[in-house]
Amino acid sequence: MTADAAPANAGFASLDALVRPRSVAVIGASDEPARIGGRPIAYMKERGFHGEIWPVNPKRATVQGLTAFPSVEALPAAPDVAIIAVPAEHAIPTLDSLGKKGCRAVIVFSAGFAEMDAAGAEAQDRLTAVAKRHGIRLLGPNCLGVFNDSIRFYGTFTASFEKGWPVPGRIGVASQSGAYGTHVFAAALDRGLGMQVCITTGNEAEVALGDVLGWMAQAPEVDVICAYAEGIRESAQFIAALELARRNRKPIVMMKVGRSQLGGAAAQSHTASIAGDDAVTQAVLDEFGVVRARTTEEMLDIAYAASRRIYPARNTLGVLTVSGGAGVLISDAAEAAGIAMPPMPEAAQEKLRGLVPFCAPRNPVDCTAQVTNNLPLITEFAESVATDGGYTSILSFWSQTAAGRSVGPALHQQMRAIRAAHPDRLWVMSMLAPNKTADYEADGWVCFEDPSRAVTAIAAMGQYGASFAKAEQPRAAVPLPKVVLPETTPSEAVAKALLAEAGVPAVPEHACSDSEAAVAAAAQIGYPVVLKILSPDILHKSEIGGVLLDVANAEQVKQGFATLLDRARHHAPAARIEGVLVAKQIPTKGEGAAVEMALGVFRDPVFGPVAMVGLGGIFIEVLKDVAFRRCPFDTMEAERMVRSLRGFPLLDGARGRPKADVAALAKALSALSAFAAAAGPRLAGVDVNPLLVLPDGQGCFAADAVIELQAAR
Amino acid sequence: MTADAAPANAGFASLDALVRPRSVAVIGASDEPARIGGRPIAYMKERGFHGEIWPVNPKRATVQGLTAFPSVEALPAAPDVAIIAVPAEHAIPTLDSLGKKGCRAVIVFSAGFAEMDAAGAEAQDRLTAVAKRHGIRLLGPNCLGVFNDSIRFYGTFTASFEKGWPVPGRIGVASQSGAYGTHVFAAALDRGLGMQVCITTGNEAEVALGDVLGWMAQAPEVDVICAYAEGIRESAQFIAALELARRNRKPIVMMKVGRSQLGGAAAQSHTASIAGDDAVTQAVLDEFGVVRARTTEEMLDIAYAASRRIYPARNTLGVLTVSGGAGVLISDAAEAAGIAMPPMPEAAQEKLRGLVPFCAPRNPVDCTAQVTNNLPLITEFAESVATDGGYTSILSFWSQTAAGRSVGPALHQQMRAIRAAHPDRLWVMSMLAPNKTADYEADGWVCFEDPSRAVTAIAAMGQYGASFAKAEQPRAAVPLPKVVLPETTPSEAVAKALLAEAGVPAVPEHACSDSEAAVAAAAQIGYPVVLKILSPDILHKSEIGGVLLDVANAEQVKQGFATLLDRARHHAPAARIEGVLVAKQIPTKGEGAAVEMALGVFRDPVFGPVAMVGLGGIFIEVLKDVAFRRCPFDTMEAERMVRSLRGFPLLDGARGRPKADVAALAKALSALSAFAAAAGPRLAGVDVNPLLVLPDGQGCFAADAVIELQAAR
Repeated sequence: MTADAAPANAGFASLDALVRPRSVAVIGASDEPARIGGRPIAYMKERGFHGEIWPVNPKRATVQGLTAFPSVEALPAAPDVAIIAVPAEHAIPTLDSLGKKGCRAVIVFSAGFAEMDAAGAEAQDRLTAVAKRHGIRLLGPNCLGVFNDSIRFYGTFTASFEKGWPVPGRIGVASQSGAYGTHVFAAALDRGLGMQVCITTGNEAEVALGDVLGWMAQAPEVDVICAYAEGIRESAQFIAALELARRNRKPIVMMKVGRSQLGGAAAQSHTASIAGDDAVTQAVLDEFGVVRARTTEEMLDIAYAASRRIYPARNTLGVLTVSGGAGVLISDAAEAAGIAMPPMPEAAQEKLRGLVPFCAPRNPVDCTAQVTNNLPLITEFAESVATDGGYTSILSFWSQTAAGRSVGPALHQQMRAIRAAHPDRLWVMSMLAPNKTADYEADGWVCFEDPSRAVTAIAAMGQYGASFAKAEQPRAAVPLPKVVLPETTPSEAVAKALLAEAGVPAVPEHACSDSEAAVAAAAQIGYPVVLKILSPDILHKSEIGGVLLDVANAEQVKQGFATLLDRARHHAPAARIEGVLVAKQIPTKGEGAAVEMALGVFRDPVFGPVAMVGLGGIFIEVLKDVAFRRCPFDTMEAERMVRSLRGFPLLDGARGRPKADVAALAKALSALSAFAAAAGPRLAGVDVNPLLVLPDGQGCFAADAVIELQAAR
Repeated sequence: MTADAAPANAGFASLDALVRPRSVAVIGASDEPARIGGRPIAYMKERGFHGEIWPVNPKRATVQGLTAFPSVEALPAAPDVAIIAVPAEHAIPTLDSLGKKGCRAVIVFSAGFAEMDAAGAEAQDRLTAVAKRHGIRLLGPNCLGVFNDSIRFYGTFTASFEKGWPVPGRIGVASQSGAYGTHVFAAALDRGLGMQVCITTGNEAEVALGDVLGWMAQAPEVDVICAYAEGIRESAQFIAALELARRNRKPIVMMKVGRSQLGGAAAQSHTASIAGDDAVTQAVLDEFGVVRARTTEEMLDIAYAASRRIYPARNTLGVLTVSGGAGVLISDAAEAAGIAMPPMPEAAQEKLRGLVPFCAPRNPVDCTAQVTNNLPLITEFAESVATDGGYTSILSFWSQTAAGRSVGPALHQQMRAIRAAHPDRLWVMSMLAPNKTADYEADGWVCFEDPSRAVTAIAAMGQYGASFAKAEQPRAAVPLPKVVLPETTPSEAVAKALLAEAGVPAVPEHACSDSEAAVAAAAQIGYPVVLKILSPDILHKSEIGGVLLDVANAEQVKQGFATLLDRARHHAPAARIEGVLVAKQIPTKGEGAAVEMALGVFRDPVFGPVAMVGLGGIFIEVLKDVAFRRCPFDTMEAERMVRSLRGFPLLDGARGRPKADVAALAKALSALSAFAAAAGPRLAGVDVNPLLVLPDGQGCFAADAVIELQAAR
């Protein structure tokens, strides 16, 4: 952790009482260990909670052998945390009593709120209001609760512990779904992964996923975070949590469902969640280096590998294999995962060829099954891969050889030594030797049967490393322009002027009220020019023939001016005509042509203004080839967005074109993002389409722009 | 199997002696069970080979307790199969002796052939020649051999059996790599999958992967085939094998490595293989419904699910889940895998809501954890999903609930009954209950912990089903045109004429030697027209200004004719000028514009002529958005290729365009494929670029075409 992380941590620590309590009251406590109100008590009794358990039950003197209290009021003190396990209709008064007693952290198991119907949603609003009035951090309702095995606190009614108790380890789970959160826990347990903290947020009436992620980002109980989300409901805490986790070098691997349209529909029928726009969530996750898991298995693979806490900032993969075929397979997987596999230095290759004549020492380094006849060669190969190759991650493929009666022990001994000699590397073993895995893991190795899964996990470690390194670089804040939005939706000319002032250049143009002014303007701009009718009442100029291209000289400007006025009078007799716009004509065909881009901003209900960039026309409409980013962002980030487009080669000299002015495009995109951030919530959206990007050094120009404002409320 | 499969099977049955021998000679037999020449004997002795074992060793009277023979000549008879485990330099004379003895199947373990160097490649050629002279089916050299556990035949020196012997089951492995083939076997064994036949082909001097696949396609020992390939070396047997496997409803799941550029490089350094073009291999696999696995784990998942032999021709997925979150996750995975999840009928949804008020019965059908309090509801839900929903595949998600002390047994009992009532469905369980898996499997369920892996496997079963169904439809052979290729590379006009004759229409045009003829031609074609200089010596017309567009009337034709002749004389004084080509000008902009496509054919060294189609310009060059297919193919297949393009919406009315004449395009593409198939090996390639596709009903026209011929040999 860096020193300046401390202040940001403070806010999230307000969840300490929820996750790390010294006293727990259970309202609706049951004497039956299998009932919802009985389970937390049964679990904590069995495992020895490091604190006091206060059952509340008006009908019993004892609950599961513990002294019971007849009411909240009768409790000996305000509990650090209270669990509400009573029917929904009693939850609100109970919460109020707890607040009055001084309790400031409550877990509500009770269902029947927003997940149910409109009346439930209303009840949930009242519940939230009571919590806020008392300053209570409230988890749920309709949640499966929390456990923190490090203090044997089980504020949950999950049945997962039937499978077994958590094993030591610092993987935390933060999940909006109780069933899924405990599914991950159970799957981790089957794999022997240490997942000791699990927090499920249910309906998120008060505590939301961001709070929980933030708590984990600052809690010593957690090194690695597995998160499950259906939709992000609030952004401030969520963003702060991602930022803090990154600063504290704690990787987050997230399963965000609702990626598909089908999934999106199911997510909405499942909860009262705003599913949000998946693309926006993806952009936010990318921003903070959160790796998105495609499957639960992948989530656990990544969390498992991350537990080694080796996150190379510039990840390279060296592969040592006894099977050439597996080497090719691994190379395919590495390319797909975007992880570099630079070749071994020539001299090292030469040396290895000297050891095993028909080895393939490039990378993958195929030492061939020959080494199993001369076992000390294994160390020579592995040492060369580590030292000569200098890879940050090393994947060692041995298949069932690692389980062999003769080779197995010798291999293990050598692998242990090589790993100990280079503890800074991420050492990953791919072998079919289930009964050897624990031994290798004890030596600090990460073990996968399937080499492709190993590659995915290794690639993720590099993504975390790169993101952590990025967070450490000092970054200047993006300066925001002063933006004064007009009262009503501005015309194209006003929109372009506003944007130009903010740093998004517009095509040079002049509004001219008479033909002489138009000729003068054209001369100043340079021929050819475009003429457009200028009227606040004519929105779709081209439909009435209101745009003239290729206007080449003064005579044509005069003629064109007259033609446009004629057409306007004829097609839109009632329109107020202000004159004609004379604009520079940017070539979009032939030598020196501009590339048409589309820039935009829209307002995401959770994350606020989000900017978009794409190549114009078919790229956006047919291929959905666009990049998104929360506003504002700097030009470096803008350029990264542009370069991420599949169609980027079109800007980069494909098909013999000159390279386009990507720097100017990035500057305009960043400026647009700053404009949107500065404009505030009245800005509904911006479309700059097309933005014409000229060859390198010649800039870019908005040829059209629309600014939309929120309807007045 | 269908009755007419028999004749095609006959050829592949020639491998019977290799895989199903009654007598085995081991040349280079060792008394040491751990040595390469000792292992096959040790394995067969331990497990009781259903036949005779004849060790050949001139220095010993017995080998591992068996009578040894001093030479091949001394053998009591010709063995069904012989294993050559002697150094490379002795392999050829040994093979010759075996041939003379009458042996017709040989496995060569010996290394030191084409995988080594040029001298080795030459030795391999001699080995092959000896095998062919004797009519021997030769596996290897440099291969790990074969095993067929059903008769306890282990013609292999793999050390994999240290892990355990094969378990019963009918998954076969065909692998070019010995290490990878046995890796798959070992990984399968760890999962308890029955993989009793494994054939590794090594250097493929004679028997290649296609022969092995073909043998498995007709062998009763194998229901499901796992294949590993680095490069396909021959096509006839390979194609016949894929065809036969499909006809016999045996799914093939293939790991084809060398997908990446990196992988491709590694594959070439690893073996003497021609890696071939991965895209072409992919097209061939698609043609025959071979599913390509991305990872070994996925290969085994698919093979495991396929062992149930339920392959729905029109696959639909119904999901029954206790977790809404998992339901969303599964929906995402299903959409990504392209498997349909139609909703439950309204009435059924109503009924289920009556059973559990807050269930989500659409599909995924989330019965919620409520059912664990009222267990008979499980059957009601499952029965409704099967009967009302009518899904062909049903994924049932229970996470750790399935392992629960109370719920577990009741769930299992109900799931067993429901599966028994609907044995035609593919029933898949996703649960975290390792110790229950075997019970469910015994009842015919397929079990996966991870629901995403389950979805991938289910989707593959549907791909097989669709492919098997397609194979059963009668298909007319594609009629081939009569093609007479010219002696030398034809001009554009000749190329277009040849293609037009074969059914690829060219833009209407006339070669005119004088200005009057040009005017007459233009009048016939209709204005506007394009004029192009016509000369066998001017290949790049536009570079000398030799193309005039928008020629609108007779006067302009006359002027244009003169202009072109002037320009040709000026820029290419030595060129022979034949006149001017007058062609219909097809609009590519504005209303009624044509869509520019690119069609082509190239000759793959293994699979022969392969056709390609893509949208013109950036789509091909920047996005590599193209589809490939072996020639010839019918219009239905051609249309499928066109529809598979990412840019297909551009032909289908995107951006307010009229729909393009896709039927004409498909017809032209199919005709091009027939042309290429008929033209024979002298045809090196064809480029039709652009092919202009007009709006629906108006046809398509080749605007330019190049035919390349093989250089004379």
